[in-house]
Amino acid sequence: MSIQQYPSLLLENAVNEFSKLPGIGRKTALRLSLYMLRQSEHEAESFGNAMIKLRKDIKYCRVCHNISDTDVCQICANPARDSKTICVVESIRDVMSIENTQQFKGLYHVLGGIISPMDGIGPGDLEINSLIKRVENEDVNEVILALGATMEGDTTNFYIYRKLSSYNIKITTIARGVAVGDDLEYADEITLGRSILNRIDFSNALK
Amino acid sequence: MSIQQYPSLLLENAVNEFSKLPGIGRKTALRLSLYMLRQSEHEAESFGNAMIKLRKDIKYCRVCHNISDTDVCQICANPARDSKTICVVESIRDVMSIENTQQFKGLYHVLGGIISPMDGIGPGDLEINSLIKRVENEDVNEVILALGATMEGDTTNFYIYRKLSSYNIKITTIARGVAVGDDLEYADEITLGRSILNRIDFSNALK
Repeated sequence: MSIQQYPSLLLENAVNEFSKLPGIGRKTALRLSLYMLRQSEHEAESFGNAMIKLRKDIKYCRVCHNISDTDVCQICANPARDSKTICVVESIRDVMSIENTQQFKGLYHVLGGIISPMDGIGPGDLEINSLIKRVENEDVNEVILALGATMEGDTTNFYIYRKLSSYNIKITTIARGVAVGDDLEYADEITLGRSILNRIDFSNALK
Repeated sequence: MSIQQYPSLLLENAVNEFSKLPGIGRKTALRLSLYMLRQSEHEAESFGNAMIKLRKDIKYCRVCHNISDTDVCQICANPARDSKTICVVESIRDVMSIENTQQFKGLYHVLGGIISPMDGIGPGDLEINSLIKRVENEDVNEVILALGATMEGDTTNFYIYRKLSSYNIKITTIARGVAVGDDLEYADEITLGRSILNRIDFSNALK
């Protein structure tokens, strides 16, 4: 590969910045930079400022640690939501995914990651203590563990389960099973096995 | 499709800005925004400022219209380059592509587009008059037309050819033919036909 010569340091700088983004190589970064060059000065400014402000002015909800424009996020501050049910998720992205289903009316707790010894992430790096404090100090009925169905997710689930088992609350986890719309033949054995073990009353499946 | 609810206006704003970029949908835009959120404040600032500066501070070479950090670009200002040969290209990207080949030692002239009635781009929208002025006022031997092998490219080539034909200069165009490394069976008929018509002396092919 030859060394790309950029006719301008400003362009080279923009290409370098774009190619730091995940999934964006130097060719795409150049294409995006040249696109940016064709925009009006106002548009380029509003793009750049949106990125600077996003990082500088973002707040994290002091209750659930989701991102927020206010001290307490809109979900935690909403009196119509069921504050007795807390859904534990790995990241703010998961909150958005679950909110999009419109099936959950409780509150969230964002851990900010999952236990992963390989990446050097232990329980102390996550918002687990603040979850325990919420269970201790608030009127909580149920904690739903909604982490990914991976080794790390299971480890984290189990760690939280042990920490919370002494409190008089219900601890549940999201259902694993055959995805809606999938044929049985495409489901892996473990998923299919679990979906039989954890079978549900048919009248519930109709809901 | 459901309407995505963002927990923060700052995030929504960043996602909107990212998804304006070509080839970036809202899902990727969200992924990039969340990545930006995980960077340090300094890194986010340097990203945003690179974009703002790129558009605000960029200069165009007053000779060849390539982008440049200075009034006259590094290529035009380089006394080692052959100022008697001008290579006409559509965009600054083409300059970079040709520079990467390290086969051309002349100067460039960036048209800023090609004639395309479908897109409402006529000769007046391009840097054709400034090319004619260069031929008139400078000591030019040869103009190489290096536009894409498309209908629009051919139209633009022909337009420039007619405008320059009264001057005592050589007008050439880049060779069309079978790509290096390609088998004959993969070349289209027109390309293959042209490569036979415009066949070259074998001793030249060895260079």
